[in-house]
Amino acid sequence: MIAVDWGTSSLRVYRLDAGGAVISQRRADLGITACQGQFAATLLTQIEGWDDPCIVLSGMIGSRHGWVEVPYVDCPADPAALAAAMACLHPPELPGRTLWFVPGVADRGDSQTPDVMRGEETQICALMDALNHGCHMICLPGTHSKWVTVSQGRIDNISTAMTGEVYAVMRQHSLLGALMNPEETRFDAFAFDAGLRRSGMPGGLLHHLFGVRTAGLFQQLSANELPSYLSGLLIGHEIRASELFLRVPRPAQVHLIGSDRLLSAYAHALVALGIGVQRHSEQLAAAGIHRIAQLRGLLD
Amino acid sequence: MIAVDWGTSSLRVYRLDAGGAVISQRRADLGITACQGQFAATLLTQIEGWDDPCIVLSGMIGSRHGWVEVPYVDCPADPAALAAAMACLHPPELPGRTLWFVPGVADRGDSQTPDVMRGEETQICALMDALNHGCHMICLPGTHSKWVTVSQGRIDNISTAMTGEVYAVMRQHSLLGALMNPEETRFDAFAFDAGLRRSGMPGGLLHHLFGVRTAGLFQQLSANELPSYLSGLLIGHEIRASELFLRVPRPAQVHLIGSDRLLSAYAHALVALGIGVQRHSEQLAAAGIHRIAQLRGLLD
Repeated sequence: MIAVDWGTSSLRVYRLDAGGAVISQRRADLGITACQGQFAATLLTQIEGWDDPCIVLSGMIGSRHGWVEVPYVDCPADPAALAAAMACLHPPELPGRTLWFVPGVADRGDSQTPDVMRGEETQICALMDALNHGCHMICLPGTHSKWVTVSQGRIDNISTAMTGEVYAVMRQHSLLGALMNPEETRFDAFAFDAGLRRSGMPGGLLHHLFGVRTAGLFQQLSANELPSYLSGLLIGHEIRASELFLRVPRPAQVHLIGSDRLLSAYAHALVALGIGVQRHSEQLAAAGIHRIAQLRGLLD
Repeated sequence: MIAVDWGTSSLRVYRLDAGGAVISQRRADLGITACQGQFAATLLTQIEGWDDPCIVLSGMIGSRHGWVEVPYVDCPADPAALAAAMACLHPPELPGRTLWFVPGVADRGDSQTPDVMRGEETQICALMDALNHGCHMICLPGTHSKWVTVSQGRIDNISTAMTGEVYAVMRQHSLLGALMNPEETRFDAFAFDAGLRRSGMPGGLLHHLFGVRTAGLFQQLSANELPSYLSGLLIGHEIRASELFLRVPRPAQVHLIGSDRLLSAYAHALVALGIGVQRHSEQLAAAGIHRIAQLRGLLD
């Protein structure tokens, strides 16, 4: 089968054998925004030479702005519920193929505002397979970081923080960016830790953000250090306000899923705050999609 | 004399009589960024027909990016200290005139990161003249909102929140803006109050910001309501994390200085949170500059 992880900014395709192992994989910066509705043509190019009839897709491709809109499955959601709620499509451009779209998950729980995810649920399904049936906290850092609680093999709770996007817009479009070296992308541990410590002080994020400016104006931090300071400040606020810190007793560890680079910063912050971490690759998506396909009986 | 309030985005000039009353005033969108170093020419145009020899300027015009950089006066700062630290200039383009630049104020107090203001101190000096010598809390909402504590006729404490700038960049450059009507500028009390209530719930600002998106996606709020929701959310976070909520006992009222439009939103929020407000016009700047000039002996 072919597993497709198609998000807002990138497209990943995996060819899997009967056991779910990855035979081959490809990646392109062809997120649903970039390919402007040409979903069939884009997919065909990416899976050229792979003639498997069963294609299972997850991510924003199943959203209102994607190929078909698949309604969210509500929490608590287990892999079988996701499998049952998949949408099926036979596009004329892909004769002989069946496309299955994995639904996203919505948490309409305790707050007035629902929280949602699309794409991350496949990685979580794969991780759940490897964990015991107790309660686990999972964090998927990114433009929109997801904090997810699972227990009894079900997704119980979702909470999203706009950390990555706030970092990007503040750096590119606010007065704070003017003090930073726009080329600087290195992780500066000293500056990151200073931001992390600041996030634990009184005054709130809106006040602490202004402190990024004064730290630059008063030359406490250089143009090369300020990006890491801002990152530490935002990630610190995200973690301290997350479900992790609200739970009593506080969980001793967090499972991190994502790219090496982002995970390093989050792991650094969590360890500094006394939380253990286990890292997992975002390639979990392929295994999760395989598991969901299996539960739907597509691999018989 | 002539009082000049020259900030990043606007230039206000006031002609004052010997008692400090405003005889005439003008305003232009000629902040220090817009006039590109042409300070003398810009000022001459604005004060045309006013031949008073004494001109006192305050605001970002006295910053590193202004006409001359006047060092900050440290907290606790009283009007006499500001008067004593003014910088003097006799530009050849303005023969027969003396220009005096009011310094900004820096708070290098309890946090590692200093906080600063330039321009607001003149409004505060004018307000202090009208208040008793007790402790008062003053809020000057704006792109960078200032929370200032005064006591014994001195500025004790400054804390800045980037509320206005975060609102603007999130609305113009983030995914949140995509769900909003870009033309909408009305204050929607229902949506504002919903944002204000949300700011008091767990999860933190970075999580609550994502809720602006889901409130739009799930059609809980319309494209016309979302801007006020975002505003209530940010102002709520600002107020709840401010010095006001850190003090024990909590001050019963706050003095607000600023434009009618902004003050309305802040007054609405503060009253909803059980805090009394007294509003003051930003024209206080003229009276404050007059008071500082008097203390320096410029009006003898």
